[in-house]
Amino acid sequence: MIYNKIMKKRVIIMPKEGILDPQGRALKDVLNEAGFDIKDVRIGKIVEIEADSLENLQKMVEDYIINPLIEDYEVL
Amino acid sequence: MIYNKIMKKRVIIMPKEGILDPQGRALKDVLNEAGFDIKDVRIGKIVEIEADSLENLQKMVEDYIINPLIEDYEVL
Repeated sequence: MIYNKIMKKRVIIMPKEGILDPQGRALKDVLNEAGFDIKDVRIGKIVEIEADSLENLQKMVEDYIINPLIEDYEVL
Repeated sequence: MIYNKIMKKRVIIMPKEGILDPQGRALKDVLNEAGFDIKDVRIGKIVEIEADSLENLQKMVEDYIINPLIEDYEVL
């Protein structure tokens, strides 16, 4: 019997440099008003997902999860 | 002149174990229909933020960013 090796991975998805991040901007404003001297906040998504190969993981991420026009991703 | 040491940190925010994650569930269904045999997907947020101390970072995260009833966080 053959078992595929399943790996659990974290994929980080961030807005590309230069793309507006209104959620991050709103959080920055809240923190500034609360007295924290923060210059920049970026908010992204993290997806915890199983895959049996890095190739399948990349296919899932690139075809179904990210919008490559506005998002970059990295696998942790 | 004194410069504070600014550190840029990533904070990962995930739904607590046992808390429904409808976004993750929806993505799992899409991937299953596309032919990927995925058992579980969890989706969280990642916040890239500057702080001058771990203490300030924790305060910002716990007081302004997470909902501790339904979310856990970790600092990368």
